[in-house]
Amino acid sequence: MNNASTFKALTVETLPSRLGPLDGLRRIGGEPGQWKIREVGDGNLNLVFIVEGPKGGVVVKQALPYVRLVGDSWPLPLKRAFFEYNALTRQAERDPGRVPQIFHFDEAQALIVMEYLHPHVILRRALIEGQQPPNVARHLGLFVARNLFLGSDLAMSAPAKKRDMALFADNIELCDITENLVFTDPYFAAKLNRHTPQLDDMVRTLRADRDLKVEAQHLKYLFTASAQTLLHGDLHTGSVMVTDDDTRVIDPEFAVYGPMAFDVGMLLANFWMAYFSQRGHEENGSRSGMRTWLLAAATEIWHTFRAEFSRLWPTRRGILYPTALYEDQGDLLGARQALDHLLHDIWEDMLGFAGVEIHRRILGLAHNADFETIEDEELRASCERPALAFGRHIAVNRRRIASIEEVHAVAKLMAGETRP
Amino acid sequence: MNNASTFKALTVETLPSRLGPLDGLRRIGGEPGQWKIREVGDGNLNLVFIVEGPKGGVVVKQALPYVRLVGDSWPLPLKRAFFEYNALTRQAERDPGRVPQIFHFDEAQALIVMEYLHPHVILRRALIEGQQPPNVARHLGLFVARNLFLGSDLAMSAPAKKRDMALFADNIELCDITENLVFTDPYFAAKLNRHTPQLDDMVRTLRADRDLKVEAQHLKYLFTASAQTLLHGDLHTGSVMVTDDDTRVIDPEFAVYGPMAFDVGMLLANFWMAYFSQRGHEENGSRSGMRTWLLAAATEIWHTFRAEFSRLWPTRRGILYPTALYEDQGDLLGARQALDHLLHDIWEDMLGFAGVEIHRRILGLAHNADFETIEDEELRASCERPALAFGRHIAVNRRRIASIEEVHAVAKLMAGETRP
Repeated sequence: MNNASTFKALTVETLPSRLGPLDGLRRIGGEPGQWKIREVGDGNLNLVFIVEGPKGGVVVKQALPYVRLVGDSWPLPLKRAFFEYNALTRQAERDPGRVPQIFHFDEAQALIVMEYLHPHVILRRALIEGQQPPNVARHLGLFVARNLFLGSDLAMSAPAKKRDMALFADNIELCDITENLVFTDPYFAAKLNRHTPQLDDMVRTLRADRDLKVEAQHLKYLFTASAQTLLHGDLHTGSVMVTDDDTRVIDPEFAVYGPMAFDVGMLLANFWMAYFSQRGHEENGSRSGMRTWLLAAATEIWHTFRAEFSRLWPTRRGILYPTALYEDQGDLLGARQALDHLLHDIWEDMLGFAGVEIHRRILGLAHNADFETIEDEELRASCERPALAFGRHIAVNRRRIASIEEVHAVAKLMAGETRP
Repeated sequence: MNNASTFKALTVETLPSRLGPLDGLRRIGGEPGQWKIREVGDGNLNLVFIVEGPKGGVVVKQALPYVRLVGDSWPLPLKRAFFEYNALTRQAERDPGRVPQIFHFDEAQALIVMEYLHPHVILRRALIEGQQPPNVARHLGLFVARNLFLGSDLAMSAPAKKRDMALFADNIELCDITENLVFTDPYFAAKLNRHTPQLDDMVRTLRADRDLKVEAQHLKYLFTASAQTLLHGDLHTGSVMVTDDDTRVIDPEFAVYGPMAFDVGMLLANFWMAYFSQRGHEENGSRSGMRTWLLAAATEIWHTFRAEFSRLWPTRRGILYPTALYEDQGDLLGARQALDHLLHDIWEDMLGFAGVEIHRRILGLAHNADFETIEDEELRASCERPALAFGRHIAVNRRRIASIEEVHAVAKLMAGETRP
């Protein structure tokens, strides 16, 4: 799909001459040679440039043929930009205004020119700093509900869904990262793993935990084989940019058809990790209010997701649960029963995905800044330990936890905010 | 993929000149003009020729660009021959000797030249006649276990499985038939439905049965979204040919990646329908012994499937349940727990798929000869009625039925062989 021989990584120096002629960049005005250009990619995989002219700015994101974090010893195909572009265009249709606007896509160069979001900040960074963006939970709840519903057999025509699933099935290498790094590596002594040394004993216990390891692989089976909807695939708080008013979801290069619960579980897990990490960020005062806010935000995401999914339910025009079997026969309760069963299944799987996401961020390769920025290892371990226990609890007991209030009672117990 | 403009349906008259030059037909010897040719297609979709020469025979199966049963008002793409060919080659690798040998495939002409199976008879026909092929249950149990296991993420490499899934995802039109005819049409007054008139009251009851309709659509969701393994996709007793010694599985043109339980459920459902239909075939004596044999065969299929799947379990080399997490850590019981959970899930889903398969064969478009050959409508209805009740029972209660013995106790009760 990409021609590696014509691909050339952009640099601050070559960007003006290479992208100057593009319509997509004309909007920023001025002469390309005068543009202000910064390379700001702080993620693990790609180059990211902010390009500013007299009339505004754009972001240029370019994939590299390897994992940036590791180098060219870990090759990664350029086609991930193609999947990111395709995911962004679908998400823009399904929940308008929630992803950056696209100005240009070049498949061979694996680059996307898109809206420069400012004064947005990365949500993870905001949460570490103790900020409480007032609209983010509602926006994210709506985003997942709309995308998961509208990208599934509940809304799409069967041929369109099957063709799109086949298209994204080629996102093999990024799926492979999720499959190994999330579901398997944390549970044995995989080479790329690392963890805070004080957790050694707990890591041993978790890696000998039979029920947990069986559950983790069962969840992996759901991930590899349940092509329910188009997932974002990497929906953590580092993939969200916020202001007080606006929320944008970025970086869907891991997009693939998978189980609905995956995106919701990963998202909530990252709010729960933010919760457990707060005690490590109290140098400038108590984070007690922030902890309360984070659990309230998780509750709001889940309730908004449920409410919006339920609001969309009567609009379903795909091949599943056709109204001919329920509403058209006057059986409103039948339609409701089907919806409630479906949401219940998503709930149970969501808790599982959330549990393993927490584990892999503490025990695997790709750690979270929430914990990583806590420099004192003892303090960090004291935040990570209850998070690990919480993750194990919700993953293994997911079929017998009834509500998010119950989940949060466990979280508070683990964090020492309440006593048994 | 197919060029409709070059496609031409074969006839008994044109076959010798068109296929005479093929290597694949040289094996039957003689001059093409002297071949003995019969068109024997009794299925719903295709042309089937038996071509015999002095040294032997072959079968030539050719797809038509429409549903043969209905005519060109129902177009159906020729590419189904491509999927049949691809499924047959995979099945031949995964369970050698259980599918017909392929001698030639022509994609543009949508035709497959394959082994002429004789003196094999269609299993459904044998069961209607009261025959008890002694090896068929074991062979079929092995066939499903090997194909379902070896076509999944338990055995394949992740890239190979994803590519293959994408390939078969294009089998859209045949999936659409399954999706509508199996899971939806039987449960409302769909245009193509028909049923024995004496069932009117029961049909009304079933179509108002909320739990059943919610379950049927939940199963449809599993079918459309659970790409666990390469399914045969149409594994009923009309897709099996037998002698006392040999068993062959034919006609996998509905092949697609789907849930493991689907093939097993459809297969057992057709044995159970054979069981319920026996009372309609007692003109030449009691079928009591045949009924006993049929339930024993269903039991043997299920037990063989479980045993073979379990035998293959330690050989898994795919991405799921890696031995690094269990056996390599000395945790044999962990590996066993994972296997048992998986088989339990297949069991529960299998009962659901079996239940809806029974319903659609009595209430939908494509009926079974088991019931259809019972000419007396009162007698036929008296066989179909307990089958429908049984199907409803196992579909709705599938999560609370522990064993196949329990299932068969219900079957005997429904069929009046035992009293409550």
